[in-house]
Amino acid sequence: MADKNDIRITYPSSDKVYVPGERYNIQVGMRRIKLLDTVTINDQGEKINKKNSPVIVYDTSGPYSDPDSSIDIQQGIPRIRNQWYLKRKDVVQLTELSSEYGRKRQKDKSLDSIRFPHLHLPYKAKEGKGITQMYYAKKRIITPEMEYVAIRENQQIEALGLKSYITPEFVRKEIAAGRAIIPANINHPEAEPMIIGKRFLVKINTNIGNSALSSSIDEEIEKAVWSCKWGGDTLMDLSTGPNIHETREWIIRNCPVPMGTVPIYQALEKVDGDIEKLNWEIYRDTLIEQAEQGVDYFTIHAGLLKSYIDMTLTRLTGIVSRGGSIMAKWMQIHNRENFLYTHFNDICEILKAYDVAISIGDGLRPGSIYDANDTAQFSELYTMGQLTKVAWEHFVQVIIEGPGHVPMNKIHENMKEQLYACHGAPFYTLGPLTTDIAPGYDHITSAIGAAQIAWQGTAMICYVTPKEHLGLPNKEDVRNGVIAYKIAAHAADLAKGHPGAQVRDNALSKARADFRWKDQFHLALDPERALQYYKESAVTDGEFCTMCGPNFCAMRLSKEAQQHCKK
Amino acid sequence: MADKNDIRITYPSSDKVYVPGERYNIQVGMRRIKLLDTVTINDQGEKINKKNSPVIVYDTSGPYSDPDSSIDIQQGIPRIRNQWYLKRKDVVQLTELSSEYGRKRQKDKSLDSIRFPHLHLPYKAKEGKGITQMYYAKKRIITPEMEYVAIRENQQIEALGLKSYITPEFVRKEIAAGRAIIPANINHPEAEPMIIGKRFLVKINTNIGNSALSSSIDEEIEKAVWSCKWGGDTLMDLSTGPNIHETREWIIRNCPVPMGTVPIYQALEKVDGDIEKLNWEIYRDTLIEQAEQGVDYFTIHAGLLKSYIDMTLTRLTGIVSRGGSIMAKWMQIHNRENFLYTHFNDICEILKAYDVAISIGDGLRPGSIYDANDTAQFSELYTMGQLTKVAWEHFVQVIIEGPGHVPMNKIHENMKEQLYACHGAPFYTLGPLTTDIAPGYDHITSAIGAAQIAWQGTAMICYVTPKEHLGLPNKEDVRNGVIAYKIAAHAADLAKGHPGAQVRDNALSKARADFRWKDQFHLALDPERALQYYKESAVTDGEFCTMCGPNFCAMRLSKEAQQHCKK
Repeated sequence: MADKNDIRITYPSSDKVYVPGERYNIQVGMRRIKLLDTVTINDQGEKINKKNSPVIVYDTSGPYSDPDSSIDIQQGIPRIRNQWYLKRKDVVQLTELSSEYGRKRQKDKSLDSIRFPHLHLPYKAKEGKGITQMYYAKKRIITPEMEYVAIRENQQIEALGLKSYITPEFVRKEIAAGRAIIPANINHPEAEPMIIGKRFLVKINTNIGNSALSSSIDEEIEKAVWSCKWGGDTLMDLSTGPNIHETREWIIRNCPVPMGTVPIYQALEKVDGDIEKLNWEIYRDTLIEQAEQGVDYFTIHAGLLKSYIDMTLTRLTGIVSRGGSIMAKWMQIHNRENFLYTHFNDICEILKAYDVAISIGDGLRPGSIYDANDTAQFSELYTMGQLTKVAWEHFVQVIIEGPGHVPMNKIHENMKEQLYACHGAPFYTLGPLTTDIAPGYDHITSAIGAAQIAWQGTAMICYVTPKEHLGLPNKEDVRNGVIAYKIAAHAADLAKGHPGAQVRDNALSKARADFRWKDQFHLALDPERALQYYKESAVTDGEFCTMCGPNFCAMRLSKEAQQHCKK
Repeated sequence: MADKNDIRITYPSSDKVYVPGERYNIQVGMRRIKLLDTVTINDQGEKINKKNSPVIVYDTSGPYSDPDSSIDIQQGIPRIRNQWYLKRKDVVQLTELSSEYGRKRQKDKSLDSIRFPHLHLPYKAKEGKGITQMYYAKKRIITPEMEYVAIRENQQIEALGLKSYITPEFVRKEIAAGRAIIPANINHPEAEPMIIGKRFLVKINTNIGNSALSSSIDEEIEKAVWSCKWGGDTLMDLSTGPNIHETREWIIRNCPVPMGTVPIYQALEKVDGDIEKLNWEIYRDTLIEQAEQGVDYFTIHAGLLKSYIDMTLTRLTGIVSRGGSIMAKWMQIHNRENFLYTHFNDICEILKAYDVAISIGDGLRPGSIYDANDTAQFSELYTMGQLTKVAWEHFVQVIIEGPGHVPMNKIHENMKEQLYACHGAPFYTLGPLTTDIAPGYDHITSAIGAAQIAWQGTAMICYVTPKEHLGLPNKEDVRNGVIAYKIAAHAADLAKGHPGAQVRDNALSKARADFRWKDQFHLALDPERALQYYKESAVTDGEFCTMCGPNFCAMRLSKEAQQHCKK
């Protein structure tokens, strides 16, 4: 295992600060970026120093960026939410795993060497008790999770001295209405609560996961923390290789953000990749296995009905969702309806006992510009909307997955139809990619689409890396994907007029105008890259730089002109 | 100088093809991408090969990608347009340079070693003759340049068997109305005609140029050809270092795309960077010097009036345009109106004699999200609109430069105001950047904005590289910037429903569905990077790849499901 110090996250000129709750004993972690003074020269030739307020930014790095936190991946990170739900007295700790597969893996001695060493027994709702955030919200109960996200979303607004509309009560109402979710499995108490909903900051998801040619557990944890460092709000583990169960345990125990999976992948592994052998029982056991490990949301392709498969025949790229194509083949082999659809109530019964949210998967999302917004896609969307209502009857929190490949002129229709068909449930899209012709640059083709759809109301955007369509991303690809999506999400927050979103832009632009180079790096989404590029160009840290040369520095000339005006 | 073979451009699986004109003896170069057969297995287990039509794509690489063309940068590339305007009999070849500075440089023996060896004497309109493309268009004359761009824009449409609306007559009408321009200085006959206008394919501009810490002439030519390789439609030389005159000559003689400059930069060099000493005479001589070298369009900050400077006092980032800040300071030192404005008629008189287009510079473009769409910016825009009418009276072709830094929700207002204020003259924007917080990734922050504004009608977008705000771009930065902007431009072409734009997307997506990996690379905007990423991931060239593994390949499962449906 990696040295425990290897995995720490540091940001330059930044402190970890905590804002306490008012209702609950909670501590909301944030990153405070300290800035240099603005230095000007007055008419007497004296230097005048003027303080610049620090900028507080949303922080997804959890304890990894807190120098006072002890990090030991063998132990896992602090289980901050554990006491919160124990106080609610509506959950019970189990004496053994409920999943048959989970128990089998636990007893397998050959896995001892790769097993997470400090396993906890899982929690589950007491019989007959509602424990999901949606359940509490509908009962008009404000949970610590709700207060936590209210404080977290408010940081920049309050720094402006503004009164925010994002109160714990506002959070509760949005969750009760189904317009927002807090993915927070009680078995993942390490995760810091975060909210996904269109009236909140736009969130981004990143995908990690090994494939048949596997990466190691160490690497997967490193990738997870790496994603959190750059700003990933949630993490999906899409592993399809061996030892998925053990790898997942390690990641969840060390993951400060909610984690999602696509359980059908593991179910298929359990039948050795033979789709014909997939069935409800294996899938059900997989849901329970993963729910008790702490997965916060499941992608479930329950909206893909048998009758929709024919609609893809005229497509250029058919079915491009892995989960969707697996279910389509299963339905054809057995000539039966999708068991994820027929067992949807059973699924909800399982999920509600742990507060696992459901991310209804779009198995028929378009895989090319040509296939965008076709009948297959929208037929499935309407079924997803019907399932949303079913899940809500169980108080299961819902998000809706969306495309894919969509030209800009067809993006709005996606958002409009989703809001209508899915009754306001949060939309969670993969891009969309706005052209097919740039493999190697699909973080860009898709950031263009993601920014637009997020502006129009999509609550979370799933990142795409430069390797999309070509191979599995390495760490550098993950970084490039995350930053492209942080840009798209932030551009959308600005365009939506999210209060406080512009504080960081203003601070960085003021640093530019002041020639405070270091502050420009510190405020940047990627301080390391900004500094690296600056150094490559040997730009001076003075009143001009080599970009334009001393005679051509617009910033300097502009300052002189402004001083002239003031005289 | 670089070996002549070093600089050639090759594209994989591509031929250079030429489409002849019908009216004129012209040859329009295009790139034809050859594709592999689609191979399927029929019910009898036999392989069935089905041909895929080659895809013809817009080609900015000029003779560099033609293996039959002899490339020698000491000679310059073929002067294809020379005979076109000689036949028009309205130009005259001069016996010496008209610019005093140009003559001085030519006589300076110390510059012999860096001077382009095969100088041509410049051409100029005969006294009293109109020679601009706009002049001809208004006289209802279709020039070879107009037929050339009509053929060039039509390539994909005709491949579809569709009748295009982009006829030479349509081109003529758009130019006559001022809605499009063909930047085509008679002294740059090496450039292949291209058109900038909102009813045509969206174009991209790239910037090169050395700064005080100079790069060599060789490097600048290499960068120019490199930009053309990746798809740059025009090129601006923003050099501010020494030997600008000689460097520019080398670039123009070897440049197959129109070139623009900001003449005030060189004018300022001529007075050793002392803004106070700038005056109309020096500027005028610079315009003539550059016009006779063959610069196709000039950025001129003539719309920045003295009274607008005060409006920037409340800005966060003041004046960020180099040209704008130079003129602002000049006006304040002299307490006089902008001489580019007061001499605007004189400027047009010079430009019309060579058919240099004017790109009216936005000296007050916003340099931060905070400053977007302010009074200073729009005041200047309205003056730019007035100047547009003046230029059109001289038959000078006009484009209008635009921002800058603009959040997504304020982009549309820019386009709307520009169309109204500037009477439909083509808009040419720098991005816009949709957030300030991502130095190191401004090719992405700005591609998001550029795609949107281009969709709304901007005719040309000026690229931004990852080094923007941090330093000067190297070759890799240029490549990343160009590709980001090709993506934005193409996404806009798709969204605008430009006929034929989707041919390449469809072909690439079909190659994906067919597992024709090589064709995916060949059709990609950047075949080299796509192949490199693929190789890094060791993806197999078969029926599945390591991304998802054999059991999880959506494309394969989808095919199987579709075959099942058909049975």
